[in-house]
Amino acid sequence: MKLLEDKILKEGIVINNNILKVDHFLNHQIDTKLIDAFAEEVKNYFKDISVDKILTIEASGIAIAYAVSEKYGHLPFVFARKNKSSIIDENVYKTEIKSFTQNKITNVTVAKNFLRKGERILIVDDFLAEGNAAMGLIDICQQAGAIVVGFADMIEKEFQGGKKRLIEKGVKVFSGAVIKAFKDNKPIF
Amino acid sequence: MKLLEDKILKEGIVINNNILKVDHFLNHQIDTKLIDAFAEEVKNYFKDISVDKILTIEASGIAIAYAVSEKYGHLPFVFARKNKSSIIDENVYKTEIKSFTQNKITNVTVAKNFLRKGERILIVDDFLAEGNAAMGLIDICQQAGAIVVGFADMIEKEFQGGKKRLIEKGVKVFSGAVIKAFKDNKPIF
Repeated sequence: MKLLEDKILKEGIVINNNILKVDHFLNHQIDTKLIDAFAEEVKNYFKDISVDKILTIEASGIAIAYAVSEKYGHLPFVFARKNKSSIIDENVYKTEIKSFTQNKITNVTVAKNFLRKGERILIVDDFLAEGNAAMGLIDICQQAGAIVVGFADMIEKEFQGGKKRLIEKGVKVFSGAVIKAFKDNKPIF
Repeated sequence: MKLLEDKILKEGIVINNNILKVDHFLNHQIDTKLIDAFAEEVKNYFKDISVDKILTIEASGIAIAYAVSEKYGHLPFVFARKNKSSIIDENVYKTEIKSFTQNKITNVTVAKNFLRKGERILIVDDFLAEGNAAMGLIDICQQAGAIVVGFADMIEKEFQGGKKRLIEKGVKVFSGAVIKAFKDNKPIF
């Protein structure tokens, strides 16, 4: 998406040729017109695939899931929760996700009520880096017996290998913008 | 909103005549059609008031802010962040919010970049109970010199007094559904 690449170039902040901050339009202040345009591309990319539900993870995935839900005629979406405690709750599916940017492990849960066996799930998120969040959400879907029909992220950092991991799992991936590398703190698409 | 009241009656879970869980459509699984209908009512209620930006708080406010942003021609929205640490960061406005349901205090921040002096802010959130989150967001706006032009929540628990506090502050309030009380674990509108 040219629109998204331009936005990243204009407003993204690269730290140490490694981390891209997009607080101006995706992670703190939200540009809903841009996200809507991304959601339109997602719908188009997965047009031959039937979807029952959208799954994402709080907090930055929520706006994206909202937009994609709208494109699919207001399909329900579910956001996985990040929990501080590791209390055992038998009513949730649970996985652990290692955050690349924050270098910590988070317990992530989805209530069993909201993911059913056989449901066709499209997972969406803001970033695809190492693919840890995506793999965690796929794990949760597998626990539920749900079918992951695709994964859509707004910004992929291709050099971190997440897409490769997802494709090896048989998951079809769409990225709004693909960053091949950072050079002099600028993204190269 | 009849639609929202019906949804609360059908899918909400009341615990101890006190806490309403709406994980089925607002706090975990999200009904974007319902939220879109709410956003339409918000736009209509505040139709004579000009708005520059929408402000909410993660995580459950994000879907609502997205919907309201769309109704206002894709105005930007900002979600305040809940922080675990209390590290001093000079680039953020900060306040403390006491959670009614979780009985704890959370540090909440908004980057100074994203709230400007004189901006006209419409605050949105999922619930209005004691009004602590609303008062915290108003405090942040005041620190920025921004003007709070209104507050819209989907579900108000009127008996907890939040609306009264906001009106005393001179803030105009719109609630999608107003719960006067719980009786036998059922909401009374």
